[in-house]
Amino acid sequence: MTENLLKELSLRTDSRIVLLVMDGLGDLPGKDGKTVLEQAEIPNLDRLAAKSVCGLTDPISRGITPGSGPAHLSLFGYDPLKYQIGRGVLEALGIGLELTCDDLACRGNFATIDENGVITDRRAGRISTEKNQELCSLLQKEITEIDGVKVIIRSGKEHRFVVVFRGKGLEDGISDADPQLNGKKIKYAEALRDESKWSVQIINRFIDRCLEVLKGHHPANAILLRGVAKHPELPSMGELFKLNPAAIASYPMYRGLARLVGMSILNTGEAIGDEFNTLKENYHKYDFFYLHIKKTDSYGEDGNFEAKLKVVEEVDCYIPALLELNPEVLVVTGDHSTPAALAAHSWHPNPFLLYSKYIRVDDVQHFSENEFVRGGLGRFPSKEAMSLMLANALKLEKYGA
Amino acid sequence: MTENLLKELSLRTDSRIVLLVMDGLGDLPGKDGKTVLEQAEIPNLDRLAAKSVCGLTDPISRGITPGSGPAHLSLFGYDPLKYQIGRGVLEALGIGLELTCDDLACRGNFATIDENGVITDRRAGRISTEKNQELCSLLQKEITEIDGVKVIIRSGKEHRFVVVFRGKGLEDGISDADPQLNGKKIKYAEALRDESKWSVQIINRFIDRCLEVLKGHHPANAILLRGVAKHPELPSMGELFKLNPAAIASYPMYRGLARLVGMSILNTGEAIGDEFNTLKENYHKYDFFYLHIKKTDSYGEDGNFEAKLKVVEEVDCYIPALLELNPEVLVVTGDHSTPAALAAHSWHPNPFLLYSKYIRVDDVQHFSENEFVRGGLGRFPSKEAMSLMLANALKLEKYGA
Repeated sequence: MTENLLKELSLRTDSRIVLLVMDGLGDLPGKDGKTVLEQAEIPNLDRLAAKSVCGLTDPISRGITPGSGPAHLSLFGYDPLKYQIGRGVLEALGIGLELTCDDLACRGNFATIDENGVITDRRAGRISTEKNQELCSLLQKEITEIDGVKVIIRSGKEHRFVVVFRGKGLEDGISDADPQLNGKKIKYAEALRDESKWSVQIINRFIDRCLEVLKGHHPANAILLRGVAKHPELPSMGELFKLNPAAIASYPMYRGLARLVGMSILNTGEAIGDEFNTLKENYHKYDFFYLHIKKTDSYGEDGNFEAKLKVVEEVDCYIPALLELNPEVLVVTGDHSTPAALAAHSWHPNPFLLYSKYIRVDDVQHFSENEFVRGGLGRFPSKEAMSLMLANALKLEKYGA
Repeated sequence: MTENLLKELSLRTDSRIVLLVMDGLGDLPGKDGKTVLEQAEIPNLDRLAAKSVCGLTDPISRGITPGSGPAHLSLFGYDPLKYQIGRGVLEALGIGLELTCDDLACRGNFATIDENGVITDRRAGRISTEKNQELCSLLQKEITEIDGVKVIIRSGKEHRFVVVFRGKGLEDGISDADPQLNGKKIKYAEALRDESKWSVQIINRFIDRCLEVLKGHHPANAILLRGVAKHPELPSMGELFKLNPAAIASYPMYRGLARLVGMSILNTGEAIGDEFNTLKENYHKYDFFYLHIKKTDSYGEDGNFEAKLKVVEEVDCYIPALLELNPEVLVVTGDHSTPAALAAHSWHPNPFLLYSKYIRVDDVQHFSENEFVRGGLGRFPSKEAMSLMLANALKLEKYGA
């Protein structure tokens, strides 16, 4: 609904939007009863909050903890319940594979089986990443295509890898080729709908080929495949919102997500400062920038409150330089919360700050979860962020006469 | 959805609801950093706010700027994305035409074409309104019906007019008969769906007749037609909400919108005081009153902050008399925002105040956009205003057992 309305109403203009996403930003009170944002020294974000309009967003709906895929799709203006990104595709994006619309992607595990084909270790004793790379090279050398379908194998960490099947007519709707438990026989994929029968044949022939090649490579003498997913073929942000968007992200998965919605991917460095430099250097070439900070989430996942706090303080230092670019619209937010106290993604809403010329500045004085409760934007679904950004950039026409 | 639920639950009772709409009420901070409402002297509205429950409404959804049609439909309890009012119909209502369900309405321009039928001026040099009236009379005299379809022509301002085709079987889904640019040939209407083919024939024969009649009336020697729209045939407020509603509005378009949803239209004067008098005089004849103040929007559109402020202050003076009528429910709100700073409709939410015997009075002390952020009603879609009004008037039964 929203996307189609925006497709109808959006205009191409010269104004610029910067969407700064600190991944997993929202937090829960730590041992001093304060969240990361409440405890951090972030004078620039506080000053910005005092002259902005603020609120809180739910990526999916109240109480629902999102993965990175749906959390980002929402922020990019896509209904995360309508457009789904399969696990295999996300994993492929995460290791930096560039997918095409013909791709079917799966997550793989190396595993150990005994002489009867019974799984004794679903993770092949967590073989080393080096061993994994060696085995993936071997598999890739032996298996390049099956029935005209190209096979692309990429190693991940320890026992994990990704396989992508590339060819016309591949379909998803396929069960995991994984019994999920040790002590069971290895399992082949099954078609969950008629259209995927041929794809299942390809996948199962791939499994058989792997079993042949891996014979004698104990403990990694079998594979399990999960999360078989087709490239989602999303309409682009250009098509929907008439934007010419660019992504600045140091982690492959986020560049991959941005590519799925048609963003240009800008080369950038590992450091936070590199990302802000990339923004400045490319500022006149695009009209929408997605700048992604990963480490707030990584340290949240580690349960490392202090380290997460330092990342937020570091980002704060770059706010003045960002404001010097004078974007027509600046949004600072998270995609989801990753409280250190939970060491995981959570369902808590995200602080959302919008700065533009056309706002009713609210009473918020500090950049924090609880302060934003009384923000002028109230609480809203993340997928409405896009219409707010476009509206404040004067990129939307009136609806109806 | 909402309408159908209310249709099921609504009850006819003796209680009365007054919906006072100050058009385009919401604003943005002016040069002193205050909005019109924050700067105006409105002691009566402030006092009322202090004993009411308040909130903010979005006519369509966050970030979407509505036209007058959808903004009003929402307030009247109709889903503005489900029920759409075409441009031609709104224009016809705006010049005071009373439409029927058999009508197809279009906006027209007088234009200038050269000997090859190429448009040299899409506005015929903005001919005078008097000349326009003269030409419309001439056209109406010459063209009264086409193929059994009645043709009604009404002049507007300068080069603009409205034509209504009245007959059974007319359908919309018709392209503009307007190339939108000077230097192009005049264009005939085209059917966008099979059902509208016959209607297109009527419209194009009308265009040909006009070209014959206008020959020699350079610069107004051609016409362009846009926004072809069928009467929307909305279910009435009586049918949906069991109300016997009346409209008090000095501007034709709003009387027209009210008529579309089945309101009785009360005669009233141009002045704000006239409208409040009309309310008092008719107070015992209806159970729902829509009282529309136009000038907050008109001055907003002019970018005239001071004049908009004066209108709000004038309305404030009539609040005590309104309260003396003792309505069971009083709502004071806007249909959309028209900030003087933008000199146009905008996407910003509307202040919404509800006063009744059955409310939880909140902490709000002043009638203003930012004060209402902390109102007890929170932020909600305008289309939910109707259920709130009906509920507070004890006009809704319980849902489910």
